Amino acid sequence: MAANDGGAQFEAHLSEIAASTETLLDRLLGPSPAAGERARPERLLKAMRYASLGGGKRFRPFLVVESAALFAVPQERSLMAAAALECVHCYSLVHDDMPAMDNDDLRRGRPTLHRAFDEATAILVGDSLLTFAFDILARPETHPDPAIRSALVLGLARAAGLGGMAGGQMLDLAAEGRFAATQPQLDLPDVEQLQAMKTGALLRYACVAGAILGSADGRKRTALDRFGATIGEAFQIADDILDVEGDVATVGKATRKDADARKATAVGILGVAQAKKKLFGLIEQAEAALAPFGRDAALLQAAARFVAERRA
Amino acid sequence: MAANDGGAQFEAHLSEIAASTETLLDRLLGPSPAAGERARPERLLKAMRYASLGGGKRFRPFLVVESAALFAVPQERSLMAAAALECVHCYSLVHDDMPAMDNDDLRRGRPTLHRAFDEATAILVGDSLLTFAFDILARPETHPDPAIRSALVLGLARAAGLGGMAGGQMLDLAAEGRFAATQPQLDLPDVEQLQAMKTGALLRYACVAGAILGSADGRKRTALDRFGATIGEAFQIADDILDVEGDVATVGKATRKDADARKATAVGILGVAQAKKKLFGLIEQAEAALAPFGRDAALLQAAARFVAERRA
Repeated sequence: MAANDGGAQFEAHLSEIAASTETLLDRLLGPSPAAGERARPERLLKAMRYASLGGGKRFRPFLVVESAALFAVPQERSLMAAAALECVHCYSLVHDDMPAMDNDDLRRGRPTLHRAFDEATAILVGDSLLTFAFDILARPETHPDPAIRSALVLGLARAAGLGGMAGGQMLDLAAEGRFAATQPQLDLPDVEQLQAMKTGALLRYACVAGAILGSADGRKRTALDRFGATIGEAFQIADDILDVEGDVATVGKATRKDADARKATAVGILGVAQAKKKLFGLIEQAEAALAPFGRDAALLQAAARFVAERRA
Repeated sequence: MAANDGGAQFEAHLSEIAASTETLLDRLLGPSPAAGERARPERLLKAMRYASLGGGKRFRPFLVVESAALFAVPQERSLMAAAALECVHCYSLVHDDMPAMDNDDLRRGRPTLHRAFDEATAILVGDSLLTFAFDILARPETHPDPAIRSALVLGLARAAGLGGMAGGQMLDLAAEGRFAATQPQLDLPDVEQLQAMKTGALLRYACVAGAILGSADGRKRTALDRFGATIGEAFQIADDILDVEGDVATVGKATRKDADARKATAVGILGVAQAKKKLFGLIEQAEAALAPFGRDAALLQAAARFVAERRA
């Protein structure tokens, strides 16, 4: 298969999984209360749907579904875990966009949630999407084995919380000099740690979730863990390069924000040329990590190249 | 046993469980990263500890532990579920206190988290405590049976999310007229629904969590569910009466805020005298719900009276 064919096949699968994730989230976020819920307040539900439907490449869901597919996990199960992860991703965007955090007005070409609604609603939408992620993972339809559901919950909590994504956002705010008189100087290991938490942890979890759903043996689980960690690092460097080189029309959000805020990024420390070199090295590592799966991992291989080459 | 003895015994148990919860949260929120965490950023951890340690009657943990004790659940397990629930309660206080929500400066006699730290930290502390709650519930040390851990996760998510606490806060903001030109007129069923979600859902879950931990049969689980729902309603009415009658020194937070904001409360609709009558009716119902447990439920009976009689 030529590289271009792999790319086209990948894009088709990405779109297909994005559509399936959208359909599932649309159903899960319907108006009828689930067992144990009193009611679903209209404004909150509407705002949760605004935050989670109608946009995004759904790259994390793709990673969950394709990692799980290596173990022949039925897609209706892996899509549940994918939808849960996407709820966490979307909650983090809503909270990070708020005035007290990154103060963004534009997201995926639309007003950010606190601009389209208000700040109180944005806080509650983030809280509710985060909570809903664990609701989804704990449902028997996600997996009939409760040990697997518990492992999915624990893994997501570790990836998203104080020692993962939320902690990474805190480190990122600190790196801007928010909590000190002068902006701290971060070296490359500091930045890598920050990014591994802020962005990497969820991407890594996406791949590990596939292994959990598939009851993978230790070797295959480690392989997916390594793939996820590497692709997560690559994803962030590609994002930082895009921030420097992209334009707002293509990217759908404000660009050069990081450079303007003098945020600590690998690109800022290494320069664009060296960062690109590092990026392609990471893609090679990510591809190598998939060796235990052979040809079965062709779509994940293509995903790694997509990360390196994406333009938005 | 005279009523006074019951009260004294209850107070002693409440203090003891509060101390045990504090000790456990202090350990869980230690500086060392858990498996799957990269690091625990110092500022975030410090702020999470500020939000969750050093205060509060820990009434929800008491309900979890005493409900579980009806089924001889070892306290080291029920305290884990209690700590998780307390993390959710504390997260909700941090987010609700923020300027965009209730804009409170004082909580338990100390500056609210966004005043002691800043708003960005308050958002992240809330997010991280909420996430941490599910981390705690999914750990094998909470219960060796993963079906029980999954049920605890699902129950908490339903109680805390869109159809529970967070949805109730949204309804409460709407009731203030935040999202409309004029303040909507809520009738008593509307207010009861709002309160059942905002405050009641977590108190109810506290009791149900005991039943889940204890693998209760349907009849006993329903009894605890009913007890929790009733005590939750009573708790809120007592809180509203306190808001009207209490003073800031005793209560440790601003009082008369609800009356000043013309918030829709049962007390506002019924008047204090009728509300007190309703409160004592609910306490009787709560006590009646515990009938299947006989004398074993003496401490929970005392808890119901505590709710009715508390002064802060």
